[in-house]
Amino acid sequence: MKLSLLQHLSLSVPIFQSPMAGSQDHRLAVAVSQAGGLGALPAAMLTPEGLRAQILAFRAASSGPLNVNFFCHLPPAPQPDAEQAWRDALHPYYEEHALTPEQIPSGGGRQPFDTSMAQVIEDTRPEVVSFHFGLPTADLVARVKATGAKVLSSATTVAEAQSLEAQGVDAVIAQGLEAGGHRGHFLDHDLSLQLGLMALLPQIVQAVSVPVIAAGGIASPPAVRAALALGAQAVQVGTAYLLCPEANTSAVHRAALSSPRAAHTNLTRLFSGRPARGIPNRLMRDLGALSPVAPAFPLASDALAPLRQAAERLGRDDFSPLWAGQAAAQSRAQPAATVTQWLATGASA
Amino acid sequence: MKLSLLQHLSLSVPIFQSPMAGSQDHRLAVAVSQAGGLGALPAAMLTPEGLRAQILAFRAASSGPLNVNFFCHLPPAPQPDAEQAWRDALHPYYEEHALTPEQIPSGGGRQPFDTSMAQVIEDTRPEVVSFHFGLPTADLVARVKATGAKVLSSATTVAEAQSLEAQGVDAVIAQGLEAGGHRGHFLDHDLSLQLGLMALLPQIVQAVSVPVIAAGGIASPPAVRAALALGAQAVQVGTAYLLCPEANTSAVHRAALSSPRAAHTNLTRLFSGRPARGIPNRLMRDLGALSPVAPAFPLASDALAPLRQAAERLGRDDFSPLWAGQAAAQSRAQPAATVTQWLATGASA
Repeated sequence: MKLSLLQHLSLSVPIFQSPMAGSQDHRLAVAVSQAGGLGALPAAMLTPEGLRAQILAFRAASSGPLNVNFFCHLPPAPQPDAEQAWRDALHPYYEEHALTPEQIPSGGGRQPFDTSMAQVIEDTRPEVVSFHFGLPTADLVARVKATGAKVLSSATTVAEAQSLEAQGVDAVIAQGLEAGGHRGHFLDHDLSLQLGLMALLPQIVQAVSVPVIAAGGIASPPAVRAALALGAQAVQVGTAYLLCPEANTSAVHRAALSSPRAAHTNLTRLFSGRPARGIPNRLMRDLGALSPVAPAFPLASDALAPLRQAAERLGRDDFSPLWAGQAAAQSRAQPAATVTQWLATGASA
Repeated sequence: MKLSLLQHLSLSVPIFQSPMAGSQDHRLAVAVSQAGGLGALPAAMLTPEGLRAQILAFRAASSGPLNVNFFCHLPPAPQPDAEQAWRDALHPYYEEHALTPEQIPSGGGRQPFDTSMAQVIEDTRPEVVSFHFGLPTADLVARVKATGAKVLSSATTVAEAQSLEAQGVDAVIAQGLEAGGHRGHFLDHDLSLQLGLMALLPQIVQAVSVPVIAAGGIASPPAVRAALALGAQAVQVGTAYLLCPEANTSAVHRAALSSPRAAHTNLTRLFSGRPARGIPNRLMRDLGALSPVAPAFPLASDALAPLRQAAERLGRDDFSPLWAGQAAAQSRAQPAATVTQWLATGASA
């Protein structure tokens, strides 16, 4: 028998806000939480201290449960040749923006979950801890579970859902191919294995006995109703919140989402080194969205940072990741509470 | 206001059987029809006389409405160089199977809807005439509509749905990326424009005022319920019928669908020249599923025919199109009436 995740978390609506690193902080999480949904904080681009501060800010503003999300990739070995090739490919753009080699950082990027982040979880005790790209090592998962947190992770195939259940997750997020941002696959990198949510969700619900949350392309009440009909206990929604005033979505990102361009998204590995869905822009068109010239995750992003900054200063999105799911055209520029309540009508109808 | 397509067609269940050229004849259509769904005959690989005979066979066995389906591609100009390159790529396989050049046909393949087929429609008056790859010329569409038939065509994007509505279709089939067999896109061949059904269906329902039928990855009652929740008036189901005894699905195709291999499908243009979804086999692995070496639709299939025949005689699917949608693992080897009634429980629950 499947436990009701909503009852356990005392949520009044089955709406989970997707953690969206780079596009939000505690303010979006608070707004969704106050409307009865599950607010989420993305930790992938934060230091432990930064995360701790955001969790405290959330707690100060909402008494609802909180989902803290981590990436858990294996950091790649240094790849000087690949990184140099990437910088060479970007060289014409550096020249165009009069950027010098000294202005190009290296070696940083997104950090995976580790012992210092586990310490933050132990100290702050969020109700939900979710992972993307699989799970961290068993000892780290055990530390999280010992805090009482429900542990979630994303599955993009039936095999991944079964693997996560075997590793002890409390719920599986079924991430359809429609989803914006990074794909969560971790067992096999063949993109042809990635399924649309209509096919993926019922097969995962059938294959595992833990609760399933549906993600990908859900941006309207009918889609919420459909996901619940397919057996999900809740939906996770990201792109539909990107135009909310509480999100930190950049000006160029908001402009793209509000334009007819939002009708077309594509998977690209250029911005980080892992496939993620976004609205095509100049870099994707110039280099090819899935070009192997970008080095392994997360090494690709550093070299783009100064280009992105320079272009955005000119109002251009040439080098900015414009993460968006396939239902991006349905996003609405309204407060997050309004969006949450609107989506929730799909759960009650 | 959207008319109820089901009421017009006097269907008791909102289940349309997908026309599947090469895998079925009137027997599958009759079985679905007798169970209250909409039976379909694929005409793409039939002569006008062959189609006429199948329609008569359907009429003799069922009093239900009938959907006759046509491809409506523009036949390509002769491409002797591309066809030769294709035969060269296949040459090692011809040698392996001791096939000689004289055994390799050319110039045939699938035929688009034309005046001789329009004559068959005028004579036999099926209740529904559906098209794939857009619509035929306006004069041919007018001849079909003059018979009283409801005209349907597939849309894979919002823009295609709007184009079809502007051309006067009576309903749009929203074909999600999950769907098995040929993709129906006709405005733009960029595959990154293709959407999962969860994102595509609500956007098409919002964009057009004609009824919408959902297709792609629907192979269980929850998926039927979800598609109706997303605003579809009916669902079109193909792969879920391929294991039925009334289908002509080949032995190697049935074996693949019944195996763990059914969990993985991929788009390939090797078998016809247009992208279609099937279970990966030797040819797809050897040449690359989307390799440009296959000539334009429908020229690719002729050169494969003798290879397919020779391999299947050995019980191998090396050169056979194993069409299947992303929910293929949910297909059941049961009579089509049982499958239809099972799916229909998703519409009443």
